[in-house]
Amino acid sequence: MSNHEHNDHLHSIRHSLSHIMAQAVQRVQQADVEIAIWPAIDNGFYYDFLFSPEKQIKEEDLPKVNEMMVKIVKENQPFTRLDLTNDESRYIVHEVLKQQYKAELMEEFMQAGEGISFYLNSIPEQAKDQLLKGVHEEYVTYYEGVTKYFQEKHPTEFAGRFITFLDMCEGPHVETTKEIDPSAFKVAKLAGAYWRGDSNNVMMTRLYAYAFDTKEELKTYLTFLEEAKKRDHRILGQQLKLFTISPLIGAGLPLMQPKGMIMRKEVEDFLWELHEQKWYLRVWTPHIAKLELYQTSGHAAKFGNELFRVKGKEEEFIMKPMNCPHHMQIFADNQFSYRDMPIRYFEPATVYRDEKTGQLSWLTRVRSITQDDGHLFCRVDQIEEEVKWITDIIKEFFGTLGMLGDYWVSLSVRGDDKSKYLGSDEVRDIAEASLEKAAQANDLPYRRVKGEASFYGPKLDFMFKDALWREWQLSTIQCDFNLPERFQLEFTNQQGEKERPVVIHRAIAGSLERFLWIMIEHFAGAFPVWLAPEQVRIIPVADAFLDYAKKLEKMLKAQSLRVSIDDGHESFGKKIRNGELQKIPYLIIVGEKEEKAESVSVREYKTKEQYELTAHAFVEKVKEIRDNRSL
Amino acid sequence: MSNHEHNDHLHSIRHSLSHIMAQAVQRVQQADVEIAIWPAIDNGFYYDFLFSPEKQIKEEDLPKVNEMMVKIVKENQPFTRLDLTNDESRYIVHEVLKQQYKAELMEEFMQAGEGISFYLNSIPEQAKDQLLKGVHEEYVTYYEGVTKYFQEKHPTEFAGRFITFLDMCEGPHVETTKEIDPSAFKVAKLAGAYWRGDSNNVMMTRLYAYAFDTKEELKTYLTFLEEAKKRDHRILGQQLKLFTISPLIGAGLPLMQPKGMIMRKEVEDFLWELHEQKWYLRVWTPHIAKLELYQTSGHAAKFGNELFRVKGKEEEFIMKPMNCPHHMQIFADNQFSYRDMPIRYFEPATVYRDEKTGQLSWLTRVRSITQDDGHLFCRVDQIEEEVKWITDIIKEFFGTLGMLGDYWVSLSVRGDDKSKYLGSDEVRDIAEASLEKAAQANDLPYRRVKGEASFYGPKLDFMFKDALWREWQLSTIQCDFNLPERFQLEFTNQQGEKERPVVIHRAIAGSLERFLWIMIEHFAGAFPVWLAPEQVRIIPVADAFLDYAKKLEKMLKAQSLRVSIDDGHESFGKKIRNGELQKIPYLIIVGEKEEKAESVSVREYKTKEQYELTAHAFVEKVKEIRDNRSL
Repeated sequence: MSNHEHNDHLHSIRHSLSHIMAQAVQRVQQADVEIAIWPAIDNGFYYDFLFSPEKQIKEEDLPKVNEMMVKIVKENQPFTRLDLTNDESRYIVHEVLKQQYKAELMEEFMQAGEGISFYLNSIPEQAKDQLLKGVHEEYVTYYEGVTKYFQEKHPTEFAGRFITFLDMCEGPHVETTKEIDPSAFKVAKLAGAYWRGDSNNVMMTRLYAYAFDTKEELKTYLTFLEEAKKRDHRILGQQLKLFTISPLIGAGLPLMQPKGMIMRKEVEDFLWELHEQKWYLRVWTPHIAKLELYQTSGHAAKFGNELFRVKGKEEEFIMKPMNCPHHMQIFADNQFSYRDMPIRYFEPATVYRDEKTGQLSWLTRVRSITQDDGHLFCRVDQIEEEVKWITDIIKEFFGTLGMLGDYWVSLSVRGDDKSKYLGSDEVRDIAEASLEKAAQANDLPYRRVKGEASFYGPKLDFMFKDALWREWQLSTIQCDFNLPERFQLEFTNQQGEKERPVVIHRAIAGSLERFLWIMIEHFAGAFPVWLAPEQVRIIPVADAFLDYAKKLEKMLKAQSLRVSIDDGHESFGKKIRNGELQKIPYLIIVGEKEEKAESVSVREYKTKEQYELTAHAFVEKVKEIRDNRSL
Repeated sequence: MSNHEHNDHLHSIRHSLSHIMAQAVQRVQQADVEIAIWPAIDNGFYYDFLFSPEKQIKEEDLPKVNEMMVKIVKENQPFTRLDLTNDESRYIVHEVLKQQYKAELMEEFMQAGEGISFYLNSIPEQAKDQLLKGVHEEYVTYYEGVTKYFQEKHPTEFAGRFITFLDMCEGPHVETTKEIDPSAFKVAKLAGAYWRGDSNNVMMTRLYAYAFDTKEELKTYLTFLEEAKKRDHRILGQQLKLFTISPLIGAGLPLMQPKGMIMRKEVEDFLWELHEQKWYLRVWTPHIAKLELYQTSGHAAKFGNELFRVKGKEEEFIMKPMNCPHHMQIFADNQFSYRDMPIRYFEPATVYRDEKTGQLSWLTRVRSITQDDGHLFCRVDQIEEEVKWITDIIKEFFGTLGMLGDYWVSLSVRGDDKSKYLGSDEVRDIAEASLEKAAQANDLPYRRVKGEASFYGPKLDFMFKDALWREWQLSTIQCDFNLPERFQLEFTNQQGEKERPVVIHRAIAGSLERFLWIMIEHFAGAFPVWLAPEQVRIIPVADAFLDYAKKLEKMLKAQSLRVSIDDGHESFGKKIRNGELQKIPYLIIVGEKEEKAESVSVREYKTKEQYELTAHAFVEKVKEIRDNRSL
């Protein structure tokens, strides 16, 4: 999900709650637990802890932490800020708190020239005994030491106060915990996390919590999670037998089962149909190439760490991480004139990127990425029109999937760190202006986003929302003045001179693996007819009606519909349940009545409607819904 | 081409001619040239020589060699066989002939326990001066030495004879050179060849020659070569812009240009259509997998040297050399019952094999091999019927291409060296018997060929002839009892027990790269309408008829025909020539007459016919030819 809409107050609440969580953990679990990083995130916040082995927190301890957080919030603890000298900060972290990971962070902040500040929570000293009743003795002792130090050094701020927690932090925070709705957050789960994300470091325990402004928002979010769980592509992928992860093949390398492949081929064929209408030409390129290709393109320097190296007996290759340099080679083997331009190549092709093993997960993070890739070679004055054709494809494709209701486009331009981008300022200015002009001319709901450009040029990134209201960056249109230069591409212009073309990179669905994941969860496995692996299942109520079932099957197959007959030995009820578990759009039941009337009794999965129709009308209906790719 | 039909006498002639070639080379170029191997091959023979640098033979010397061979043939030289002791053989090779490569071969034959024999050519001593007039003095001196030795040691055989050449050889040979038709052979070309094919060894010079029984046969063959040259896929591939070889991508890794891709997609779509009708299910698998997969399958041990190794940051993979183990993983992730069997998977997939760089050539020898691959999982008693369905597909596919006139099937079974094959004798006997039974039941024109089985089982290899009467092994059906065992595959049989399936591997076109090569040369670039990248080109005789041309284009496109308009600035004659160079099936010319009559003037490429037709009739005609995939 994107965090482009920033809610500052919610951010303060989440960040304040992370301090409150740490205080709660110290109160219920371990007073001198090592505390590490504590950011606010999209749906709440987390805090990383390092417990002593004998005090390691467990899943079942989380309700206690949650309960204690509620109590702390109700204690109306202020957040008091202190900006301190480096010397005093060092003394506090090393001698008073004795926190080694905070010390490491602190030294880095100091070296970066940043001032050090602390946020302290406290309660009235006279309320201490009452509020901390039942809390670990070690916790009380630990903070008696802390309180003593601050009451001596900063008497103005802490006279009569007992300090309950402090963190080195630059804020911002709420003024006091009473600003927080105690029913609008929930400790969610535990996970392992390496200190600084590096697997050579110690493994810490990360506590996640969801946090929102109001109880209602939390509730909505929890409902969303429940819905997302039901739609989980890992579970549905198994249940509907769409794809397979095999340990002998490797993580991040999903295999498409026949049913998943039907969906993937439908998507691919639809995309090709849309591109063929816009004069694209299909090409094919191998999955490996010599390193020199990527040195020329600049990918070797940029993606070096994600490149798979292929060693042969005599030669070395790279598995292609992108198709662009390959398509440049196809262009370069022609002598094109201005009359031939634009040249448009389309290739649904699998690229390979060496993602870290630990980050791979089902279809969400893979090493084999099949892109609906394409590259256009055109004159600068053709960019606007080409963006229009691409936009037409995008709108038709996502309109068909019901995802066009609420989308926006990020005009991703370069940021300040110019070392991250190829090409001169002048060329990049032209590229950015061309795309912005095209976005305006095509009436796209765009926003300019700095620092999000690709390394070879600016982009229009299309952000779509799925049925769970999650936002996905899917389509992309990228303008590139650099690769044509690097590969010395040219065409003959009207004056008979050699001219360099512009390259437009584009993808509509993006990665087909990721897209299958999104489709599974967007449709919760109940796919529209054109995508459904099995479109119709015929259930005869008894063997006597098998002939009629076969006649219907033949009628449906004649329209290339994907149909099966359940003639197994299970009970009728079980067969209906099986069909519903497989989320087949139409179950049709046939018995004596239907055979006599040449009709079918239909059960629609999505609407749960049941009705009778003549066989002919049913075939026509399903065919039309399939042909129109109706939802 | 296959050499399954063995002509023993022609083989003797070719082998004898290789001796005659060596004699001729020694007479015209260098007497003490090192001579190496000298086999008969399908269209003639070759001999490998190592010349002194200053005497290196060149292309322009070949006519002299040919002329001298003709002379030698006419000299009526006998081939005299001597079987000698190892000691004497050693003396002759080392001391008389001084041939180091022959010496190396001789020692190996001796170590293998083979007897050593020589074949000697000679002329009457009194004819020496006349016959050897003009021949190098060194040649005469060299063979005076040889003659002296043999006249002393073997006076019976060589009294009054002058020895002109001898070679360590086991024959057989013709009795005398007069059996050879001096107009039925031709020295063809020079090539470099490493001693024993190893690039660490010295590079020798190989002289090829064509040789046949009669002058007419040689003429037919030379005509064939000329025709083959015209059809050369390397030249036509460039001219028709079908594919690209890029040095930045690498040798053996062809990229498909849009026109080549149209053909490839037509072939792929046709194959899928045929398979879909036979209940195949499409799957997709990634191009890399862990080494363990190929260790389990046995490919790692068998193909170790041809496997590309893929190195990532954390893990190592192998580029798949075959799809079978991947498809096993897809099968294994299901619980199938006997009611589900057979399971049939189809995947047009690219595999990678590390062929030697020096052997790579255009589409004939590649590293990226796209197979129309498929695997069936069935019960033993289903093999026969499945072979029938596959045979149906093969017959329809190759019938469509006009290649079904003369084909045969090799029932390739295992040879005597059992180390080359997986699995027990018992299992292999069942597999061989099953395939033979299926071949009989399906009335295939098969022959049993020993030693040609794949390492995991016997095969039916389909051998087709192309328009040049060259034989190609294309389709294959392979029976495999081993991989299911190695991957522990199972289904539940009717008794509720786990049972192991048989796997049938099958490919129809084989490698699509190789198939494109064959198609280009089979059709000489003039493809049938369904395969032709551009099916119709419209040439308006003047700009005034462009509107009518566009109307026609629209009519043709409405039928998904691939059509273009040549509205360029070249002359009408040039446009016709361009269309013919591109071998477009139909050029249609439109002017005033055609516009008025709503007709087209057609020029057919293949028949060279020209005729007028109404526009409507033309569209119908081309559509029908395309839909029927007519030749």
